[in-house]
Amino acid sequence: MKATGIVVEYNPFHNGHLHHLQQTRIKTNSDIVIAVMSGNFLQRGEPALVDKWTRAKMAIAAGVDLVIELPYAFATAQASDFAKGAIFLLDALECHSFCFGSEEGSLEAFQQTYNLLSTKKDEYNTVIANSMKKGNSYPKALNEAYTEISKDATVPLVDLSKPNNILGYHYIQAANLLNSAIQPETIQRIVANYHDDASNTETIASATGIRKLLFTGHNLTEVNTYMPSTSLEGLKEWESTNHSFGSWEQFYPTLRLLILRSSREKLNQIAEITEGMENAIWKAAMAHANFEPFMQQIKSKRFTWTRIQRMLTHIYTGFTWDQLRDIQSPTYIRPLAMNKQGQAYLQSIKKDLRLPLISRVAASKGDKQLQLDLKATDLYYLGLQASYGQSMVGSDFRTAPIILE
Amino acid sequence: MKATGIVVEYNPFHNGHLHHLQQTRIKTNSDIVIAVMSGNFLQRGEPALVDKWTRAKMAIAAGVDLVIELPYAFATAQASDFAKGAIFLLDALECHSFCFGSEEGSLEAFQQTYNLLSTKKDEYNTVIANSMKKGNSYPKALNEAYTEISKDATVPLVDLSKPNNILGYHYIQAANLLNSAIQPETIQRIVANYHDDASNTETIASATGIRKLLFTGHNLTEVNTYMPSTSLEGLKEWESTNHSFGSWEQFYPTLRLLILRSSREKLNQIAEITEGMENAIWKAAMAHANFEPFMQQIKSKRFTWTRIQRMLTHIYTGFTWDQLRDIQSPTYIRPLAMNKQGQAYLQSIKKDLRLPLISRVAASKGDKQLQLDLKATDLYYLGLQASYGQSMVGSDFRTAPIILE
Repeated sequence: MKATGIVVEYNPFHNGHLHHLQQTRIKTNSDIVIAVMSGNFLQRGEPALVDKWTRAKMAIAAGVDLVIELPYAFATAQASDFAKGAIFLLDALECHSFCFGSEEGSLEAFQQTYNLLSTKKDEYNTVIANSMKKGNSYPKALNEAYTEISKDATVPLVDLSKPNNILGYHYIQAANLLNSAIQPETIQRIVANYHDDASNTETIASATGIRKLLFTGHNLTEVNTYMPSTSLEGLKEWESTNHSFGSWEQFYPTLRLLILRSSREKLNQIAEITEGMENAIWKAAMAHANFEPFMQQIKSKRFTWTRIQRMLTHIYTGFTWDQLRDIQSPTYIRPLAMNKQGQAYLQSIKKDLRLPLISRVAASKGDKQLQLDLKATDLYYLGLQASYGQSMVGSDFRTAPIILE
Repeated sequence: MKATGIVVEYNPFHNGHLHHLQQTRIKTNSDIVIAVMSGNFLQRGEPALVDKWTRAKMAIAAGVDLVIELPYAFATAQASDFAKGAIFLLDALECHSFCFGSEEGSLEAFQQTYNLLSTKKDEYNTVIANSMKKGNSYPKALNEAYTEISKDATVPLVDLSKPNNILGYHYIQAANLLNSAIQPETIQRIVANYHDDASNTETIASATGIRKLLFTGHNLTEVNTYMPSTSLEGLKEWESTNHSFGSWEQFYPTLRLLILRSSREKLNQIAEITEGMENAIWKAAMAHANFEPFMQQIKSKRFTWTRIQRMLTHIYTGFTWDQLRDIQSPTYIRPLAMNKQGQAYLQSIKKDLRLPLISRVAASKGDKQLQLDLKATDLYYLGLQASYGQSMVGSDFRTAPIILE
């Protein structure tokens, strides 16, 4: 069986994701598609709309064969570490390839870009450092540096101001640094709000757009058009038990208490918190009872919104610089859900795996990364503040991979 | 002006407190009654029913002249430190006396008991240590030791199995250790459920009994008979803004999150947590979504319910052994509320005070004990989980003493 990999968050799974999934299977000519998926906290530094189990089920119901959890330490990391953790796992799962959606759409441009940046690494880093000294954010500095070193290029390059191109670049980089035979592929992303000519109705919206609809009081049938019916069912099931969707607005009272209970010194030990951000965060928490104005007070030219949200995620879970520095690469493979084909594939590679395969958590409970995943999952449920969340505490320890079909 | 002091929690102020207040004024022949009152967390290790400002207003409305906050570190401490902090403050406020309610009612018995325990200190401590080695709780060990050393006594002694006698004993001890001229007095406590012969209706209930009524769905008019109308108004005002009364049941979801976010090592650094209690607390939090079964799982022969609740209070506020060890005696006098007489009294002693008088917090914000009080107050409001609580964060820093009449 030939397996390919994708890196996903599915927050929630929508028609754009379905397109990516179907095209991946065709383009890589694979029997099996394995998705490495973030758990309950995401790369944008946010709690997920619905928990990882519900999202994993949606993925299988829509055609993914096997969903593997990307451990917390990678799922909530900056792009390079996020990509490193995900590609490492896909490689460990013996995928012959992986395929990502990008604004670019051509793999050659990514390879050329990677070659250029590798060759001109020192120049690139110097421009980045100088730009950041001027107070620019990291992404802005990257962009300046990239414009500078690519200005005389004669080969096609990727536009690294586009979010999916940036992630794609990091996947390519991760695969190269891993020194693995895993083969990258990319497909062009369908633009959100694209009009389907056949029916002239919108069927693609971004996950951000869908979340916005859900958070502004639109009911589930209104997001129906943007996702497979299986996703709608997953959201409905979640809504019927939990009554609301995970968001920083909902988690903010708890986050605020955690910030104000901390000293500035303790906040300073939290992963990603640097340059006096502990003071800015503490003061904003003291001043604001709602998440949006709290963030408006903190945000600066220096740090992107998602970077700040990652700091907040780490405050929420108590994840420290020491813990972050301690982590190199994923130490286990934890399947969340699979279909019969996914199960058969896992069975076929089981004996060769270089990482422990965790289906019963109890057997691996000493693993630090796993402890962190269990804790993040429990804290996610507690942030929901509803009796459903309270009842789910400790469940991640006991839940076995879901097998559908 | 002659001032006397009382040590109170007023959770909430009821007819028994009114009796104590009136009798204190008569017995000590004083113009001014000063109450040292716990803030938002109490000696039983519980969040207060209503915040300290509301309780201070109730006290003034019922006839107290001046309410001073007992700092968090003393208010939530075991009886000896609670008493030490309170008597220290009353002495610093130049009270010529203090008067406590006791089951005993005779000061002579307290003095004799203090003399006996001072003389037989070594024997007393040996019996305590031996009893605790057998796994008994500290209060039980005290009781055994006391029975042992008092068995041949020829003078009247206090029954130290009674809660108010125990507190009273510690007040006497604190006054003696302070080497102060402050004069103790005691009056007999009116027993809860006492029947007033005149009307044959109950007008006295314990604060515990009143809280129980409030938490079991009884409305405010049903507790009316046990408290002055001024207290009822205070509770009504609180209910109209906050919609609920502070309790561990209400604070438990947040406490649970704080426990599960901590490592066992971190819990072990929290004040009062010893002998593996960090494990018992962590496991119980993992297992239970409600406070009562959580406590039932933790409680043991070794630790009293209130001792465990004090551990939980310190977890909630993040108060550590290091902070506890750092604290000797109160470092400031913070008036919460007063009437005109109380104000005049404060004015008259102001220039002689050996502790800073805090009416504007901003001027004293570097004080560690005060920082702790501000933090505990903010965390109390956040535990209420209602928009009123959210809006009150930071207010303690800005609130000036309330002057009534």
